[in-house]
Amino acid sequence: MTRIGVIGATGYTGAELIRMLTGHPDVKITLLTSRQYSGVRFDEVYPSMAGFTDAVLEPYALESVCEKTDLVFTALPHKLPMEIIPGILKNGVKVIDLSADFRFKDAAIYEAYYQPHTAPDLLDKSVYGLCEVYADEIRKADLVGNPGCYPTCAMLPLIPLLKERMIDPGSIIADSKSGVSGAGRSLSLTTHFCEATESFKAYKVGSHRHAPEIEAILSRESGQSVGLTFIPHLIPMSRGMLTTSYAVLTKKATDRDILEILQNYYRKRFFIRILEENRMPDTQHVRCSNFCDIGCKIDPRSGRLILVSAIDNLVKGASGQAIQNMNLMLGLNETRGLDHPPYPV
Amino acid sequence: MTRIGVIGATGYTGAELIRMLTGHPDVKITLLTSRQYSGVRFDEVYPSMAGFTDAVLEPYALESVCEKTDLVFTALPHKLPMEIIPGILKNGVKVIDLSADFRFKDAAIYEAYYQPHTAPDLLDKSVYGLCEVYADEIRKADLVGNPGCYPTCAMLPLIPLLKERMIDPGSIIADSKSGVSGAGRSLSLTTHFCEATESFKAYKVGSHRHAPEIEAILSRESGQSVGLTFIPHLIPMSRGMLTTSYAVLTKKATDRDILEILQNYYRKRFFIRILEENRMPDTQHVRCSNFCDIGCKIDPRSGRLILVSAIDNLVKGASGQAIQNMNLMLGLNETRGLDHPPYPV
Amino acid sequence: MTRIGVIGATGYTGAELIRMLTGHPDVKITLLTSRQYSGVRFDEVYPSMAGFTDAVLEPYALESVCEKTDLVFTALPHKLPMEIIPGILKNGVKVIDLSADFRFKDAAIYEAYYQPHTAPDLLDKSVYGLCEVYADEIRKADLVGNPGCYPTCAMLPLIPLLKERMIDPGSIIADSKSGVSGAGRSLSLTTHFCEATESFKAYKVGSHRHAPEIEAILSRESGQSVGLTFIPHLIPMSRGMLTTSYAVLTKKATDRDILEILQNYYRKRFFIRILEENRMPDTQHVRCSNFCDIGCKIDPRSGRLILVSAIDNLVKGASGQAIQNMNLMLGLNETRGLDHPPYPV
Amino acid sequence: MTRIGVIGATGYTGAELIRMLTGHPDVKITLLTSRQYSGVRFDEVYPSMAGFTDAVLEPYALESVCEKTDLVFTALPHKLPMEIIPGILKNGVKVIDLSADFRFKDAAIYEAYYQPHTAPDLLDKSVYGLCEVYADEIRKADLVGNPGCYPTCAMLPLIPLLKERMIDPGSIIADSKSGVSGAGRSLSLTTHFCEATESFKAYKVGSHRHAPEIEAILSRESGQSVGLTFIPHLIPMSRGMLTTSYAVLTKKATDRDILEILQNYYRKRFFIRILEENRMPDTQHVRCSNFCDIGCKIDPRSGRLILVSAIDNLVKGASGQAIQNMNLMLGLNETRGLDHPPYPV
Repeated sequence: MTRIGVIGATGYTGAELIRMLTGHPDVKITLLTSRQYSGVRFDEVYPSMAGFTDAVLEPYALESVCEKTDLVFTALPHKLPMEIIPGILKNGVKVIDLSADFRFKDAAIYEAYYQPHTAPDLLDKSVYGLCEVYADEIRKADLVGNPGCYPTCAMLPLIPLLKERMIDPGSIIADSKSGVSGAGRSLSLTTHFCEATESFKAYKVGSHRHAPEIEAILSRESGQSVGLTFIPHLIPMSRGMLTTSYAVLTKKATDRDILEILQNYYRKRFFIRILEENRMPDTQHVRCSNFCDIGCKIDPRSGRLILVSAIDNLVKGASGQAIQNMNLMLGLNETRGLDHPPYPV
Repeated sequence: MTRIGVIGATGYTGAELIRMLTGHPDVKITLLTSRQYSGVRFDEVYPSMAGFTDAVLEPYALESVCEKTDLVFTALPHKLPMEIIPGILKNGVKVIDLSADFRFKDAAIYEAYYQPHTAPDLLDKSVYGLCEVYADEIRKADLVGNPGCYPTCAMLPLIPLLKERMIDPGSIIADSKSGVSGAGRSLSLTTHFCEATESFKAYKVGSHRHAPEIEAILSRESGQSVGLTFIPHLIPMSRGMLTTSYAVLTKKATDRDILEILQNYYRKRFFIRILEENRMPDTQHVRCSNFCDIGCKIDPRSGRLILVSAIDNLVKGASGQAIQNMNLMLGLNETRGLDHPPYPV
Repeated sequence: MTRIGVIGATGYTGAELIRMLTGHPDVKITLLTSRQYSGVRFDEVYPSMAGFTDAVLEPYALESVCEKTDLVFTALPHKLPMEIIPGILKNGVKVIDLSADFRFKDAAIYEAYYQPHTAPDLLDKSVYGLCEVYADEIRKADLVGNPGCYPTCAMLPLIPLLKERMIDPGSIIADSKSGVSGAGRSLSLTTHFCEATESFKAYKVGSHRHAPEIEAILSRESGQSVGLTFIPHLIPMSRGMLTTSYAVLTKKATDRDILEILQNYYRKRFFIRILEENRMPDTQHVRCSNFCDIGCKIDPRSGRLILVSAIDNLVKGASGQAIQNMNLMLGLNETRGLDHPPYPV
Repeated sequence: MTRIGVIGATGYTGAELIRMLTGHPDVKITLLTSRQYSGVRFDEVYPSMAGFTDAVLEPYALESVCEKTDLVFTALPHKLPMEIIPGILKNGVKVIDLSADFRFKDAAIYEAYYQPHTAPDLLDKSVYGLCEVYADEIRKADLVGNPGCYPTCAMLPLIPLLKERMIDPGSIIADSKSGVSGAGRSLSLTTHFCEATESFKAYKVGSHRHAPEIEAILSRESGQSVGLTFIPHLIPMSRGMLTTSYAVLTKKATDRDILEILQNYYRKRFFIRILEENRMPDTQHVRCSNFCDIGCKIDPRSGRLILVSAIDNLVKGASGQAIQNMNLMLGLNETRGLDHPPYPV
């Protein structure tokens, strides 16, 4: 049993990791840390977990990590991970970081959108944890930068088509929509029930920090500079993310052609479900699961390609993909502990 | 007091008409018809209305319409209105039709997307009831085809910019999202609570019948052929519609330039609220009101124009705009009976 | 036009007051205060109100109240009102207080559940603003303690039956359920969207401070000591409150008998709707309105009386009743500005 | 691997059974039947299940049941099960029936609330499947009547206290609240999204058919005649049920005393979680799980005992308890396939 720590255990991604890890057959949780709830039992903070763990939350300490764990997830706000991860890695403990700190190869891009990077030398060693695209590198990695939810959802349908040069890289628009849990457990008017219910809105229009993350990866995969328009919206529901992407085709194609490219690229990848012609994803169909469902349609009026992809933002968009990364890093089948059906309702 | 009838009173748009008409100072409801609930009191079907009307629902009969009303709203499924409206008009009663039957000038387009038109000669006489654009024609009309909810929401920000030739008419994408009440009160799995909650999905991708309606009007207003990509989505909430539109600018412009064009076009139009720079609409802010809120942003990465517009699909997208049309047809101020603030929560 | 101030304008009850007051034909808002948003336009805090007010929020100052207003609503947290209200009253400005500070005649009860009372001499002068019960006193009052939402909902069906000695005062159980807006606009995990959705729970079981408020009034009205069991629950919705009350009948009766007592007591009271036999209230049917709907049923198995009452917690449970109180205090018809139908969806 | 059939596979309880059974280590699904979707793949009806089953729905036929299965779940509307179950049992296939048809020992009670019973001789053989109470009988049973959701939720806290004669059996009131999925997947105005959202209401007041089911079992367990008041309400959410029960104590007791009786009775029963003093259940904490959480409080004002219990109506209230029954009948640990944590959000 590999010994696992969760650093930052009481946010939504931390709690989701813990729920999934308690059912994982090959690992055991040996360390949970929290600043806010240090000294408190985890199941007091999340009473749903009563009976599954009697762990008490500890303050973070490098020594505990080294003594008690073989691999840790850092589920902390941006900036904190890059301060502690170098020390953890030096002690031979593997790290999967759920923040943006290790998602970029180029520190300059990170610094343009976040803050000065305090561990830039690690960026070369870190692997971007988009499992279906970088599985080989992930298997060998000691440090994985777990992708953002929006980038995961937007890029999975686009990458195979960009690699096949089917779409014009300058034409891509990703109109994305996320459930409220994407904003985390911290309090804000945006996440107040009465402000979120019956509310649908765009936010951070033209300025969301997932745009450069998407561009960096799409450019790398397509071998071309990709500059996309990315607009996030907030849906009045707790979980789920759906992205409708628009792109100009570079050659004539049918819905069937597009689906075949997607099917070929994701052949044998359990968590990617390419839907049949004229079927479209629904966030309910992937809810509480690690799946990404993808559908497509060429608009008969304009000839534009429309791609629709859906994930659970907390699972494939965060903690589920993090565990999938762990499975790869530990040499396990990538589906271990994640192969249950969605809970649609 | 003008005498008003509502033909098809028990669907959501019919009921919304009745609620708003009971508070209107210049009209009185004198006829409510329903096939399904004929003989039943309206406030038995909608108990919220107890104390505001003791009207009993009648089966539809032309004679009742002629005897009892000066103006009727037809809130019926497509196809039924064109069968009864010719007779009503002949008797000197004005009509506002909430179906698609009288929204098109060209019967061929209607017939391509709906069914054979049985009153094509009336299409010339009917006026498209987009109040802020066609107020002058509406004032003189006996028959108004009340716009669809998606077209209203999508076109209000686009028309001024197309008229100014600021955007490429071939580049427009309208990514629209609607609350569940847009599907009406009839029963279907789509509107089942457990299937709709925590569900976000695209539907009728590439085939929704509001696309030709939008194209016809945008082409007329811009004097150019407009072929847009329009994708509707369903939001897990009851009321509200938000459209995020994307277009390529034909000349260099700033957010401020775009907002000024919109402000100029809608100067003194109470129900259009152009937001300040860097503000974006929220469906809550127009909920239960006849407002359309509009924001814009030029994407700094791609230079594309992003327009966001929000309405209440049952009010400005249906019954509120229908009453605004009535006000214009009766020579009243267009805001009569509609000038209350939204109910955000 | 009477000049009105709202002290504490940006919480949910303050904002609701302002929305309703902007449509009131006999008053005008002349002062809005806020600590948190002082200097900000009200419609920046509540963008839905754009076009209805250009008022700027001011810090509270007694002089402004005296200069600018004839009557003020204090929509502040408990304890603050009793500090400022004595000064306001001394200057001849009438006050409707939405906190608990002036709901009790007996300072000792207030102090047992809240804190030391700093203006106990005013308790005698203040009138409990349950409009359908105390209209005569309210008309003459300078200071009204606006009732809590739970007490309003629970007591309206009980008072007529206690007065008629139809129910055993020691047998009453009020199982109450409230939408999330009852917790106000301040941030807490309880009101976080992801914690509230799909969550139903009891809270403050056996210790909610509305219990002594209910007991005090029911005891006064019935002339007997009433000790009830009151349990509040939180419903995953924004607005609405429903109370299911249980009581042992003191004499044999039918549903019809009970309904007649209620109808007689509330004869000609517009905002109380006694439902017909075998009909039950629904929070949707009173949503966004000042109505209280009441239904009843004698349980055929146990003979117990079951009363169900529904209100909108922000309207009849707070700001709507406050305006109804204002109407009475100003000698207006109690329905002025409040006589619109509910918005069920 | 035991071969399992689900008769009536496409309703919510059928689909929930199938989801859980696909992850069960000791059984395999070998037959799915549906009238409405006969010939269709199950994952076309429930796209969330793509990748987990390629089963095609069949019309019901006794021969298929006998050939292909060792145990079947009947997830059909009341009345149908009693027509087919006698034939199935005769062929040596065990049955767990999720309808009311085999929940009563006394055909007369069933017939008073449902319809004439066509297999009354089986009532003696059938066991009421409340697992934590009747485990010994269930282990030996060939036919189990799976309990209703309301009875499961209401009775679990009451039974130990009635057995200990702590509460007056004539004083019990169960105020119950259920999510919308309890009404099933069939279409009705009640389950229409726009009618259910922001709606809270009581229904079938004094006439719900779960009342006699509760009374029959409580009377059997307490050895006294129990006549309770039971009022169901509908919550605007998809899953979850919470019951607040009120009873008069027969002797002086503290919260601690009550909790100890409950803890003792449910010692070592994994799915019953007795909360600590001053903690109360929340439907989120048991969501998508087979747990029943129970809290209690003696009302300091009235001395009445308040019990609060929460389950997921589709899991412990239906399909989860059905699988727990299957585990017992097959000699497995009762937690097999059910021992995962809840999904609170």
